[in-house]
Parts: sequence; C-alpha cells; structure tokens
Amino acid sequence: MSVHLASVRDRACLIVHGPDRPGIVAAVSALITRNGGNIVALDQYTDDPEGGRFFQRVEFHRPGLAAASEEIEADLAKTLTPLGMEWQLTDQSIPKRMAILASTSDHCLLELLWRHRRGELPVTIPMVISNHTNVAEDVRSFGIPFFHVPSQGPDKSEAEARILELLGGNVDFVVLARYMQIISEDFLDQVGVPVINIHHSFLPAFIGAAPYRKAKERGVKLIGATSHYVTKDLDEGPIIEQDVARVDHAMTAHDLQARGAYVERAVLSRAVQWHAQDRVIRHGNHTIVFP
Amino acid sequence: MSVHLASVRDRACLIVHGPDRPGIVAAVSALITRNGGNIVALDQYTDDPEGGRFFQRVEFHRPGLAAASEEIEADLAKTLTPLGMEWQLTDQSIPKRMAILASTSDHCLLELLWRHRRGELPVTIPMVISNHTNVAEDVRSFGIPFFHVPSQGPDKSEAEARILELLGGNVDFVVLARYMQIISEDFLDQVGVPVINIHHSFLPAFIGAAPYRKAKERGVKLIGATSHYVTKDLDEGPIIEQDVARVDHAMTAHDLQARGAYVERAVLSRAVQWHAQDRVIRHGNHTIVFP
Amino acid sequence: MSVHLASVRDRACLIVHGPDRPGIVAAVSALITRNGGNIVALDQYTDDPEGGRFFQRVEFHRPGLAAASEEIEADLAKTLTPLGMEWQLTDQSIPKRMAILASTSDHCLLELLWRHRRGELPVTIPMVISNHTNVAEDVRSFGIPFFHVPSQGPDKSEAEARILELLGGNVDFVVLARYMQIISEDFLDQVGVPVINIHHSFLPAFIGAAPYRKAKERGVKLIGATSHYVTKDLDEGPIIEQDVARVDHAMTAHDLQARGAYVERAVLSRAVQWHAQDRVIRHGNHTIVFP
Amino acid sequence: MSVHLASVRDRACLIVHGPDRPGIVAAVSALITRNGGNIVALDQYTDDPEGGRFFQRVEFHRPGLAAASEEIEADLAKTLTPLGMEWQLTDQSIPKRMAILASTSDHCLLELLWRHRRGELPVTIPMVISNHTNVAEDVRSFGIPFFHVPSQGPDKSEAEARILELLGGNVDFVVLARYMQIISEDFLDQVGVPVINIHHSFLPAFIGAAPYRKAKERGVKLIGATSHYVTKDLDEGPIIEQDVARVDHAMTAHDLQARGAYVERAVLSRAVQWHAQDRVIRHGNHTIVFP
Repeated sequence: MSVHLASVRDRACLIVHGPDRPGIVAAVSALITRNGGNIVALDQYTDDPEGGRFFQRVEFHRPGLAAASEEIEADLAKTLTPLGMEWQLTDQSIPKRMAILASTSDHCLLELLWRHRRGELPVTIPMVISNHTNVAEDVRSFGIPFFHVPSQGPDKSEAEARILELLGGNVDFVVLARYMQIISEDFLDQVGVPVINIHHSFLPAFIGAAPYRKAKERGVKLIGATSHYVTKDLDEGPIIEQDVARVDHAMTAHDLQARGAYVERAVLSRAVQWHAQDRVIRHGNHTIVFP
Repeated sequence: MSVHLASVRDRACLIVHGPDRPGIVAAVSALITRNGGNIVALDQYTDDPEGGRFFQRVEFHRPGLAAASEEIEADLAKTLTPLGMEWQLTDQSIPKRMAILASTSDHCLLELLWRHRRGELPVTIPMVISNHTNVAEDVRSFGIPFFHVPSQGPDKSEAEARILELLGGNVDFVVLARYMQIISEDFLDQVGVPVINIHHSFLPAFIGAAPYRKAKERGVKLIGATSHYVTKDLDEGPIIEQDVARVDHAMTAHDLQARGAYVERAVLSRAVQWHAQDRVIRHGNHTIVFP
Repeated sequence: MSVHLASVRDRACLIVHGPDRPGIVAAVSALITRNGGNIVALDQYTDDPEGGRFFQRVEFHRPGLAAASEEIEADLAKTLTPLGMEWQLTDQSIPKRMAILASTSDHCLLELLWRHRRGELPVTIPMVISNHTNVAEDVRSFGIPFFHVPSQGPDKSEAEARILELLGGNVDFVVLARYMQIISEDFLDQVGVPVINIHHSFLPAFIGAAPYRKAKERGVKLIGATSHYVTKDLDEGPIIEQDVARVDHAMTAHDLQARGAYVERAVLSRAVQWHAQDRVIRHGNHTIVFP
Repeated sequence: MSVHLASVRDRACLIVHGPDRPGIVAAVSALITRNGGNIVALDQYTDDPEGGRFFQRVEFHRPGLAAASEEIEADLAKTLTPLGMEWQLTDQSIPKRMAILASTSDHCLLELLWRHRRGELPVTIPMVISNHTNVAEDVRSFGIPFFHVPSQGPDKSEAEARILELLGGNVDFVVLARYMQIISEDFLDQVGVPVINIHHSFLPAFIGAAPYRKAKERGVKLIGATSHYVTKDLDEGPIIEQDVARVDHAMTAHDLQARGAYVERAVLSRAVQWHAQDRVIRHGNHTIVFP
C-alpha cells in the first residue's frame, strides 16, 4: 500500500492474466526463480474458482534486470503462451511518462505536481496541457513544460489534433485533472495510451454535468469522487478508486464543490499512483486493484 | 450528537419553521424565558439569507412542564401565528411509539431492539410485524409483541389492511427494517404517521431492486446505505442519513451484501434516533438534521 | 477481506515464516502444486529485504485434503526444515473452537454470538463464561452453553482455576469480550491457547483503567478501541486491529463510553474473524495481518 | 461547517461565556435584536446543567456594523457584566493576521498557503518565517513575505527574539506548520497571541519526538495527527482537532511519515480555519469547537 521509490533498481513487475488453472502460481514463481529473480510482493485473484479468469501481479528483484529482460521475456512466451495467458513485464526503475490535461481548476493538478516533487509518484511529467492559461505560472514553477491549447466553439477537432501532436510518442498515460472538455471517440482511438479521469461524484450517482448541484437538489448526506479509465461511454469506464466526504443541509452547492475538491484530489492521486505502479489491471468494465 | 436519556424529565423540544425574518430567534428565546424555560440546546438554519425559510430546534428545561404545556402552546400561537411560523412542541420525557416492519433479515431489526434495550433509543416499541416468522422468537425474547402478517401474491391490500389495523392509533412512526414489500400509496395515505426506510445502496445510485448485484456489476469501490422517509416515489423520499463501506474487486455480490448489512443497521439506527429525538425536520424533499 | 464460509471443503491454509531467502515463494508454490493443491490466495511479506524475516500465507484447494494432510506435512518438513522455516498447516473446513469470557457488558459478546449465528465467523463456541449472570439467558438463547464463575475479592486464583478447568482441552482460543478481570500470569502460562482482548481505547493512549474518563479529561476529538493478544504486560500485547469514532466537547465520559461500545464490538469482531481464518501472524510484539 | 467567505460584510461574531443561568440565551438574543442585528447562526453549550459553565457563539448580520460596534460593546458591558459573563465581539469582515513558522517540511505550509489563495481561510498572511531556506521561493511565489531566522546551537534566545521582533504587533495568531524547534516559555509569555501547533501523532499517544518511529515499534494499525494550542507543557495544550489514517504491517516508519503528512495538513487546516472563524473557545485544557 505504501510507496517505495527508493531502491527500485533491478525491480520488475510482472502482470499475468488468463484462464485460471491449477499450478499457474507455481509455474510463474518457478519461472521467476530460474531467471534469477527473488519475489518481493505477490498478489493474485480469480474471479471464479470454477473456470474463471486469473490475475496475478508479482514484483521481483533481479540483479542486472535490464540485461536479462529479453531472456525473461522469451521464457515468459515459452511458458505462458501454451497456457493461453497474457503478460506484461515492466522495469519499475523506469518511471511512466504522464501528461496532465487541465482547465481552470488547480486542485487536482497542483496535488499531482506536488506529490511528484515529493517523490511519491513514480512518473515523469513531460507536459501539462490546458485550455486556459491561469495555471501556466504554477506549472512552470515546478519545472514542468506548459502548453496552452485553447478549445472554443463546438468543433474540438483542431484542439484535439494539437493535443495528440504534443502527446504523440511522448507519454505512457494521460490524466484528466478536471479537464472540462468532452473527449471525442476519435481522440481515444488515436491517443493509444490509457486515459484516467476524475469525476466529481460518487458514480454511478449524478452522472454527467453539475453533480454537486444535483447532489444538493437530492439532499444527500455524503458527496464523493470517482477516478476511472476513460472509455467511449461517458462516465461509464472502469472505476479505479472512489471516496466520499460528509456534508449537511446547511452547505450550498458551492460549499459541496469546495469540500468535494479535497476528495477529488485524494482519489485521483491514489488512482494515478496505483496505475503508475502497475497495480491496476483492467478487465472488461472492471478493475482489479492490488494496492 | 450524543444520547441523553437520563433526566429528560421536564425537557421540551420546540421546532419552529417558517419565513425567515429578523428577530425571530430573539422572539422564540424570549417566549421560552417568560414561560419559565431554560434553553439547553439551540440549533437554527436559514436556507437563504435573503427571504429564505427559517428552521429552529430548541430544547429547554421547564419545571412542571406537563402542567404548563397548554399555557406555552397558547403563547406560541399568539406569538408565532402573526409571523406566519409553524411550530411543534413535544415533551421529551414521553417516548415516541415505534412500530417495526421486517421480513427475513434480522440485522436491522435486532440492532434496533438491542439499542432500545440499552436505553439508547427514546422510544417504546409496541409491536414488530413481519411477513415471515423466523424472527418471532428473537423479538419476543426482548419482550416485544410480534405479529405475523403474511403477504403472498400480487395483491397486498389484505396484508396492508391487517397492518393498518394493528398500527391504528398505536404508533407515532413506522420503521421498515429491511421490509421486502412495496408499500402502496393507499397504505401511505392511511397510515398517518411518518414511515422511515433503509435502502441498501448509496442513493441515488442503484435505485430499485438488487443494488448489491448492480454495485458488483458496476465495479464500485464503496457500497452504501441510505435511510429516508417513505413517499409515493419509491427510493425518492427525503434522505435522513447515509454512510458507506470500502469494498474491493475480490468481493462477490454476496460479500457486498454481508458487508453492507453493517452499514445498513448503523445508518438506520442513527436515522431512527434522530427522528425520535425530533432532530429531523422535513422540508420538501430535503431534511434538516440537527444531530 | 471478505468471508467465504461456503465451500471451504478441502481448503487448506499454510503459514510459513522464517529467514527470507531467494526462491522461497517458488519453493512453497511448487510444493503445493506437486501435492495436488491449487493456490487460491497468497500473501507474503518480508520485514527487511536485506536479511529480514519472511512471512507467507497461502490458501489452496486440494481434493481429498484430510487424507493427504499427513503426506503434505511430511513434504513440508522435508522442504522447509533445511531452510530454517517454520510452518503451520490448517484445514479451513475445521472451525476453531472459541471460548468467550464476559462480564456485565453485552455489546461485544452479543455481536460475536450474532455474527457466529449469521455464519460470518468460522468458529464453534463451546462456552461463554462470565463472572456475572445477567447475560446467561441471552447466551443460552443462541444455543451456547453458559457458565457462571464468580470472581470476588482480591484472590482470583480459585476463579481462574475453575475457568482453566472448563477450557482445558476444549478450546483453540479465548476471547475477552469486555471481561473486567485482570488475567494473571499463571493463567496465561496454563491456558495454552491465544487470548484476544478488546481494550476500550486507541492504544497506547489511555493505558489502564477508565480510558473514557481519561479521554474526556484530555479533551480528545476521537475515541478508539484496540484488539490485541494478551501478554503478561497489561495492554502491551501485539495489536491486531484498531479503529476510532469522532466525538465532541458536548459528550460526557458516559457518552464516550456509549459511542465507544460500537467501535469496540466492530474492532473485536474483525480481530476474531482474522484470527479464526489464520490471517494474523504474531512476530515479537507485532502482528502481520493479511485481511 | 462550511466556508462562507462571500458576504461577510456587516457580519459579527459574538462569543459569550460564563456561569450558566436561566435566560442567558434569551438575554443575548434580545440584545442582538435591539441593536439591529439578525442572528444567522447560534451554537451554545453548557458543561454541566447544574451550575456549569455556559458557552455561546452567535453570528449576526447588522447593517453598518463598523459604525455600531461601540454602541453594541457598551450594551454588552451593561447587560453581561452584572451576570458575570465574559464576551468577545469580532467583525467577521476583518480577516485575522496569521504568521506561519516552518522548517524544511512543506506539506502543512503549502496547504495553508494554497487554501488561503483559494479563499478558504479567512486570514491574511503577513509573513512566513523559517529556520531553513528551502521553502523561500515557494512562499514568495504565493506573494507572501518570507523571513529566514536560523536557529542553531542550544541557545534559541536570539532566534526567538528575532521572531518576536518580526511578529510584534503584526499578527493575531501564529501557526507552527511542522516548525521543528521547541518554543520556550519566554517566547510564549511574550508573543501575546494564540499559537497553534500540529503534532504528528494521535495525542496523547506518542508524545515527544519521533512519533512515527514509536508507532512502528508499537505496531499500531492507525496513525494520527493532532492540532492543539501551544502551552508551556509540551504536547499537552488544548486539542482543537485530530484525525487518523489506516496503516499496515508492511509500512516502514518512513511510509508512516509519508502517509501521516496528509493527515497532518488536513487536521492543521481545519484547526486554522475554525480558529480564524472564532469557532474555537478555550476553556482550561479543553476546547469547545462549534464547526
């Protein structure tokens, strides 16, 4: 659950998933051992003990990992392909490259930049893109490049094209830190990396716009926030993390929004951290999270 | 926020609501003082400082309250009627009479009975009614009368008539403690007292049946429960209290239900306690709760 | 984290701990596989990557477990003894036998009995022992034997001897459910099974008697409860679980105690469940909990 | 509970405390009404219904407040002095002046600066003082003056004298935002304004230095933070706010510290907000908080 950025040298993360079958944990463990690795963390989950799907995350230490990766990959292919399993091997010492898209609100954006500066997010941040300019100075004070891509009028295709051009080949995932523009299906088709969003409600309650106003109208006693992968179905993507805060009748919709900002930045930060550490496995419209 | 069952003798609760206007708090305070009362708790709320609606709850101690009530009521009428205010004066030493309707699940029911026995709910419980018999022995072991009113087939009118007959004149409010029957509009028209329900989801998410199954399908990371007043719009009544619990991908819908039971019994108990202590004011589809 | 009482037939739990070394996870996985087991859950932890101590919990399914246990034990001895590891193999289909010691308070006791009846605690309860008689009827209504062992005067040796006589050979662990008697070192020496206590504060704050009074005097804004294994050092044993609840200045010490009762019963129930499911490993004055 | 920075013009806050007696709420309400004020929020508390001490906080709107203050003060003196009550009248439109003392850690400091910039803290920040220089640039990027007052060696008197000189007449309260220097009694005698500290543990657990290391050693399952007024007894001052976060056996003392930072900044921010809004009344070693 904690962050261990120190000493991730020669630390690998292996994600394996596929049809569950007896002996799979042993097969993967043996593979790591015979390739010189020592397991330091292991989580696994089967969604149905009878013929379900199997998910495993293993962290292991392997001196000289970079040099050995090709060999390990070959062994993985030889071992897991016959079992119908898919896998992903990552070197934990190579931080993922994260782009942030933002609008005028700064609470999620600054929280990510600040956690990154503290060394709590294993990422690099090659750029922040906003359709507004108010956060430019703050972003640059963290030493992060800022790009302004205005987005006016109903046709977003030009803005999206400009953003895709900036992102192209430069990032491993994208975070929408209260980016107040609808992302088109085209954009998602072309971006080619995972996109993580923060929605300002406890989904599936208050889907769509103005959730705090709707929450006030319904008279709820808790408000929430949801971080999820973006899919073509707005607000329907796989949920990574959620949390709530208590509110009362005396709070206005504006008060709910102010209170909710603290939930949003915490929820998004946890989702980003888990994604960056390969702790989240997507499966259909669900996530398996090994925090 | 706490329970003070001891020494509620000569303790009155006054609820006042109506159009906000300057001096109303002072007018009510002066009225209580000139009638020999000493204010021990006071909460108030205005939903809009400009021409909004005013809500106040005052607890006061008045030696010889029972004898003085008529006189105080007369002063309230004289003072508040010209201001267009409504009010309700209750003697806190007279517990409200609460009927419980239940089905097979016992977690909410037993929690209420047990809290009542501990002296934490300022109510009497004249009866528990269930459309099943499995909880009969438990209920009677608490010294509470149990009535079995079966409810089979699509026509619930006979069962509802029988329940209304049992309740008639005997109760001040009704609690649906996981009572798994839809209440008809006719029933609500005739019952004449507030009805409090516990819904097994964080409303407005997962309205309707099988919320835990829906929660599992959506892959949420928190489940919740909601206690609300029952209105003719199913699951749409004014919310009194809500809470949540954390869940993860490894939990089945059945696990969510088991975990959720603990949230349900806590949320319903708080809602019942606050209602019984006149801490909840209904206003349209909202509640003002002074906990 | 969830309870899976259904289908624990042929389900084994293996706890392994000892000096950390490369390949230990693989060795244990291979052992389980070659003995016909299929791993369904696996957690492990090393307290220091460099020469630390290794802890592992594996649940596996093995058709015909009861018949194969001896063979598996032999393989464990052959495999793990040379590595200096200790282990414990349990059949999850055999519930642990839990005795409860109580005094006048019923909140922790009834919660355990009720969760047991719901099938949420994988234990049998051969007896409840109390130094008072007020809970006798409640206990027996759950079909559980009740024994009254009075404990008056400073010399507790007679009472403890009577309790040890009742427990002897009949239980796998003992739970002190707000048992308000100090347990002697002699008793702990002789009882021969783990003893779990619930302390009514957030240890190490407010060690000793009257923690709610002390909490009121100090003016804390949260109160807590702590479940721990009992050792000869009062209130100093390894902590299994803790939780807190919010309080405010208006609450009396009595109010804190009433609020705290709900924290106590929840914390103790989780600790008991985890212990019963072999999810807690003691190591020195710490616990490793794989919930 | 919420922040209402808009429209605090002509908004006054009156704190009254003294011996409880019948009619005091009515007397204060009448005073406000006859001075042209309209009560918008009222909280009160009596620590003992029989001869206890009475505490009241009233917010009221009074057009032309600034001009009328003297008159209202005179009426307060005339009305409350004979009753033995003390009072404090503040104009909510005049923000309190808050100095922040910090060391190398930036999490509490930046959170306060950022909340202030968002308009969520009703204060001005005339200066940040640190015994280190690493935060200077960040502080100044918020437009806040930064002063470096080094503090080396055992004799802190020179540094404290320099700090007192900077603060003198310029601030209404001081916040120690993880200021890692012991404050002398002399300093407290001379500073003449309230000093609020954040302690990195759930007091009274882990008093003194290195609480996260102690928490790790004791094996607690929750860590906490405590904001309190500073008194001459280290870590013993009146507690304003506390909160906790869940931790587990796998977290190192360093992990606890990283997790704890988020609790610290939240707890300190709430304490500062409540103090700035006159929601905290000190009484002996306790606080009455009307959030």
